[in-house]
Parts: sequence; structure tokens; C-alpha cells
Amino acid sequence: MSDTALIAIDWGTSSARAYRVDGAGHLLGSRKAPLGIKQVRNGRLDLALAQSLGDWSAESVPLIACGMIGSRQGWIEAPYVECPASLVALADRVVQTRVERLTIVPGIASVDAAGVPDVMRGEETQLLGAVNAGEHAVLAVLPGTHSKWARVDHGRVVDFTTFMTGELYALLIEHSMLGRLAEGRPDAAAQESFSVGVARGLAAGELAHDIFGARTLALAGTLAPDEVADWLSGLLIGREIRAAREWARRAGADPGTVRIIGDGTLPARYAHALADAGIVAQTGQPDAAAHGLWRIALQAGLVTALQPT
Amino acid sequence: MSDTALIAIDWGTSSARAYRVDGAGHLLGSRKAPLGIKQVRNGRLDLALAQSLGDWSAESVPLIACGMIGSRQGWIEAPYVECPASLVALADRVVQTRVERLTIVPGIASVDAAGVPDVMRGEETQLLGAVNAGEHAVLAVLPGTHSKWARVDHGRVVDFTTFMTGELYALLIEHSMLGRLAEGRPDAAAQESFSVGVARGLAAGELAHDIFGARTLALAGTLAPDEVADWLSGLLIGREIRAAREWARRAGADPGTVRIIGDGTLPARYAHALADAGIVAQTGQPDAAAHGLWRIALQAGLVTALQPT
Repeated sequence: MSDTALIAIDWGTSSARAYRVDGAGHLLGSRKAPLGIKQVRNGRLDLALAQSLGDWSAESVPLIACGMIGSRQGWIEAPYVECPASLVALADRVVQTRVERLTIVPGIASVDAAGVPDVMRGEETQLLGAVNAGEHAVLAVLPGTHSKWARVDHGRVVDFTTFMTGELYALLIEHSMLGRLAEGRPDAAAQESFSVGVARGLAAGELAHDIFGARTLALAGTLAPDEVADWLSGLLIGREIRAAREWARRAGADPGTVRIIGDGTLPARYAHALADAGIVAQTGQPDAAAHGLWRIALQAGLVTALQPT
Repeated sequence: MSDTALIAIDWGTSSARAYRVDGAGHLLGSRKAPLGIKQVRNGRLDLALAQSLGDWSAESVPLIACGMIGSRQGWIEAPYVECPASLVALADRVVQTRVERLTIVPGIASVDAAGVPDVMRGEETQLLGAVNAGEHAVLAVLPGTHSKWARVDHGRVVDFTTFMTGELYALLIEHSMLGRLAEGRPDAAAQESFSVGVARGLAAGELAHDIFGARTLALAGTLAPDEVADWLSGLLIGREIRAAREWARRAGADPGTVRIIGDGTLPARYAHALADAGIVAQTGQPDAAAHGLWRIALQAGLVTALQPT
């Protein structure tokens, strides 16, 4: 393990994923533990850190973390950096914990057209890991419980907007009258009913009305019980894409190509829905948070890059 | 009790409300029991009926019911009548149960602009009770778990549309991350934060994004914990009003005046939000279902109207 130059941690609400990174920024390995800040007992984040790292604790290298660990409920609050937020600004505003080796990356904040604030923690680091400093005018989506869409330009997050798509989907499936009509859960390979839902979401409409269609279409026999969840997932993702496309257009951005950043099965569903919307989907590299943390650590002077041998 | 000419029952999913009606259509009294079709054990709706009526069972008068009692999961299915649905069409299509004295009113169905069906059961009867046969071009809202907006003209429900506003509100407050930020529940006298939410809902936006504002405004200290529920309620009702107004306009209707039909505290909140939207709110008479059931029973020949003495 002597090649390790940095330990980078994507530390969110429900889990923490740690990466060993070498002096050229390559990932040597990763470990995931269900030790997100909401899962840790008695606020013992120090014990959670030791548990997440295991024998990596023996490495005498800097540690850097992003995500909810920097929130008011986390280890130490790293105040939000306002958009447009550059790699340099984030690196300048990292916060050092009293445990000397752990540095925490701030989240970023924005304000929407109506003057309401928007925030992210962790995704800013993924964005800076998945978009190279030389790229300009990249429109990116990070699908999830709270999906984020962002405009990234030359290493700066220019602006972003949040959609609670994943949380709404979970609420509807787990707790609503519509969920009781659904049998089975969607898998990565979306069904035709997913596309039908996407089409409904992309059309003009209002969410509180459109979702009622899951009931009436099931009542009419148009949607089978095992299609309801897929249709709802498509509808919610379709509406998100419609609204995000408008958001990008209002800012003068071209929503014709979107980079999807994220791991797991959700990116495949977004790729499918984007294609249905006539948008070119680019797949971002995996483990974007680790790459972003490496870049921030480098910029902050926590590590020095070696030339790859 | 010898004045009783009809027993009218508004029989929904969670409760049943029975009314004694005299031969001039006046309400003599009502009884409510938590015996909606989802609450009745072993499908014994006959026992639930006897329990709801109590000593009224001794009256040898016709019984008529509307609501989910006429659904596939109810006593007997009364198939939907397509819009435009007149009082005459509903009366023609009532269904007789094998218990000779109980007649069930059908629900009505419509199709939205995207070709997706919409349905109601019970609200059609409230609409026909709250709008006189001589009135034309009435735009009405029935606030609730699944709010309904309808255009009613000369005793016909021309068209309607459903919004799952109440259910979304309950999901967000009871099960979402936003609900955990909220302290207390809204009461009938809406706070200023309700109006702020309404304004956000009336503006251009997307629900999945706008609701996230409850979190960021709470984080910024703009919304106090005891204002979160009011703000969310306002936002959801505001979005419903915005979408319903567009729906009415597309049909060529004037959304400048809206009749609110319903009992309890929700109509007051809708009146407040409509005023914020610059719409004149009319308050419909209470117990609209009983009046509608009387009219349908009269039209169906179940009863004969006496001249009021």
C-alpha cells in the first residue's frame, strides 16, 4: 500500500465510500460502509472513520472528504461556496478538522429564478471529477434521491438546480395509493411502460394531475400491475428532463447533450429517458467523487502530483 | 321521523355519511360513521349500512348512495358515465342493489388532453347538488386528497380534472425529508408563510424542484420550523390553481370565479389561495352530496317532490 498518496472519502447521509489514490491520481481501491452521518451513533464520526478505513488508517497520508460530512449535522460545517464556484474557490475554502489529517470540502449554493436558494454537498466534487478543466459549457445530471442538474464550464460550476425526483418516486411507491397498485419494482432494463411514462412527463402537464394517470390507466387495464412502477419512474424522470431542459435554455445553454454522472442502475434509466427526449447522453466516468477529491486536494496543496511512471 | 322521504348516503373510502331528507329536499339530520368501504371487515357492507343508519333503518323510505360504494371494490359496480354527464344521464344509470331499497349512483369519467382517463365517484353528485340546473358555465373545485376541478353547465358536468394535491401533501409531511423539518400542522387560519408558498406555486416552476425550497429556506432561516407545513400546503395548492386555471382556459372557460365545494377547513385554505391568485371564490352550500342525491333520486323517480308547506 506504499503507493498511496491520498485517501479520498465520499461521505454522505447514508454511506461513506473511501478510495486509495496514488500519486498520479489513479484509484487503487475503494471501500464502502453504511456509516453515513445519519447512521452514526452518538455522533462518533471519528469511530465511523476508523471503521470505514480499516487497515488503511495505518497510511500516513492526507484524508479528504466531501458530502454531508461538511454539513451542520456532519463533522464540522464547511460553509457553502456561492456559484459560480471554481475548483480554486473550493480548494481555498476547504476546512481542516481537529483530527489533523482530515480535510473537508465545502458544498456549493445557488439561487433560482424566484430567489429561492439551492444547495448541494458532494455533487460539486463529482462534477469537478467528471468534467475536465479544459471542457466548456457542459450540461450534467447527477441522478438520485435529489437529482442535480448543473452547468460546468472550464472547471467552474456555473449554476445548478435540484429535483426531488428520487424521493418523490420512493414516496409514491412506498406510501401512496398508487404504490398499492404496483407489483414489482423496475430493474435496470426499462420496459416499454417506462418510455410511455417518459413521454407523458415530457409533455405539458402538472405532476399532481399526471401521476393520477397511474391509477386510471391501471383501472382501464392499459397499465398492468407490474408496469405501474416503471411508468411512474418514467413520468417523474421525464418531467425532470423537461424542466431541466427549460432551465438550461433560459440560461442560454444548449440542452442537446447531457453528461450523466453517477454509479449504479439509475444512470441507465436516465440515458434511456434522455434518448426518448432526443437528447444525446454522455456517460461520465465512474467514481467521479474520488477524481474530484484528488483534483481539489492537488489544488489545495494537500498532495503533490507525481508524473505517471 | 315520519317526515323522512329519502335517506341519502355519501359513502366513500374511509367514511359514510347518511342524511335524512324530507319530501321537499330539506335535510333533517345526518350521521357519520367510520365505515368507508376500506374500513369494512369481510366485505360486510350490509352490516356497515345497518350500523350507519341505526334506528333510521326502521324508515320505510328509499336509500340512495354515491361514492366509492359504487366502485369495483364497493357493494356493486355502477359503471362510469362519460362526460359530458347530465343529471338525467346519471339518474338513468343508477344501479339497484339486491337489497331492494338501496340505489347506487355511478361515477363519471373523462379523458385528458393526452388521452389519459380521469375518474370521480361521489364528486359528480356534490357538483349536481352545489350547482343549480339553471346555472351556466360554473367552474368548481372540490378540495381534497384528490382535488377535482370541474366545469358544470345547466345540470351537466362538462369535463373535470384531478390533482393528487392532498395526498402529495400528506406524503411529504408524513414520510419525506421535508416533513422532518416541519413542526406543527397548519390550521384553518393560514399564516403568512401559506401565502408565500401559494405565490411560489402560482409562478412558473416544477413541483419536484419547488418543494426542495422547503429545505433550503429552512436551512437559510427564512422559514421557521412551524412555517414549513403551511408553506408546502400553499405551494401545492398554488400549483394546483395555476394548472387548473390553464386547464379551464384551454377549454374556453373563464377562470375568474371559482365555486368551492366541500366541508371542513380545506375550503377556507382554497379561498385564501384563490384570492392570492386574483380569483373570486364562491362558497358552495354545505352537504352538497345530500342535495345532489336528492336531485338524482327525484330525477330517477325514487321519490316524488312535495311542495314545501
